[in-house]
Amino acid sequence: MNAPASHLDALIDALRRLPGVGVKSAQRMAYHLLQHDRASAQRLASALQAAAEHVQHCRRCHGLSETPLCGICADPERDARQLCVVEGPADLAALERTGSYRGLYFVLKGRLSPLDGVGARDIGATELLERAADGQVQEVILATSFTAEGEATAHVLAQALKARGLQVTRLARGVPAGSELEYVDLSTIAHALVDRR
Amino acid sequence: MNAPASHLDALIDALRRLPGVGVKSAQRMAYHLLQHDRASAQRLASALQAAAEHVQHCRRCHGLSETPLCGICADPERDARQLCVVEGPADLAALERTGSYRGLYFVLKGRLSPLDGVGARDIGATELLERAADGQVQEVILATSFTAEGEATAHVLAQALKARGLQVTRLARGVPAGSELEYVDLSTIAHALVDRR
Ligand SMILES: [Zn+2]
Ligand SMILES: [Zn+2]
Repeated sequence: MNAPASHLDALIDALRRLPGVGVKSAQRMAYHLLQHDRASAQRLASALQAAAEHVQHCRRCHGLSETPLCGICADPERDARQLCVVEGPADLAALERTGSYRGLYFVLKGRLSPLDGVGARDIGATELLERAADGQVQEVILATSFTAEGEATAHVLAQALKARGLQVTRLARGVPAGSELEYVDLSTIAHALVDRR
Repeated sequence: MNAPASHLDALIDALRRLPGVGVKSAQRMAYHLLQHDRASAQRLASALQAAAEHVQHCRRCHGLSETPLCGICADPERDARQLCVVEGPADLAALERTGSYRGLYFVLKGRLSPLDGVGARDIGATELLERAADGQVQEVILATSFTAEGEATAHVLAQALKARGLQVTRLARGVPAGSELEYVDLSTIAHALVDRR
């Protein structure tokens, strides 16, 4: 590529680290921000820094929160006997949008990916076992994705949770196989939640 | 959407301003950065600020540059008799990658879009006419996109440039109609450059 200045290169590299962004998109974004919309570049930089500074992990569910305990974990109306395990904050948000679940959550750091060296400890399985053993949780609902890796993650977690005497369920197979939970329509998710097995 | 914290909302909003990023992608990016990859969030914030600070517009071609005059404009080997007009830095980069052009450039701020209220002055037509009247430029090659708006832009600029006694050419129609220049394969662009009319 013809002589791009070094700060421009660094920006393109940083944009490429965003999920779903290839080199072409990253170039397009960088050119757009610098050629046409510098105010947005500054705004994005500030938003990133403020979010990195203020958005923490909830100490109970490990989801994103600006307070030590997130709004869901702090809500006394939520049913502390149910703990729904998701792969990340986007899946938690999708489940909440269905309005069908009144229990609590545990947010993993993604899913098992043995080929990439991502094991149970990396995704927070230890913290999940600790959380689920609080004496209040009776049922753990595994809501990992219905992909090969999501299923393997559910299987491994189910084994460990059952060994500790917990009831373990899985979202019903209403969720289309091979799909990422956050892109599934709400009624399908709601249905799968009712039919959990 | 369930109670997302305000700094998180602000980040999602800022990410949505990037070209090609919808609300779903912006959420996914924000969640990814904050849940899994805070180092990348900090790196992107720094890269944005450094680029906004150091990458300026070349005073001659109005493209992106870290010096007052960009590498192309400062290169005495380039042919100052030819001036190629593009819609943005991505198109300049695409033309440079073909290795078929040895003249200079003028980088517009996009293309005419009357429905969005984007007129000739907004895209830098005044600066182009000034630049093309330096006494050295003999031929202005219009390399705006082959979309309806890109064609209209070329038409309007051609009229104004010809009225000032300049020879005006257009990339040959080897470029597939309806396509954005930056996504066209290099050999097609190279061919279109040779066959300019
Ligand atoms: Zn929480
Ligand atoms: Zn220049």
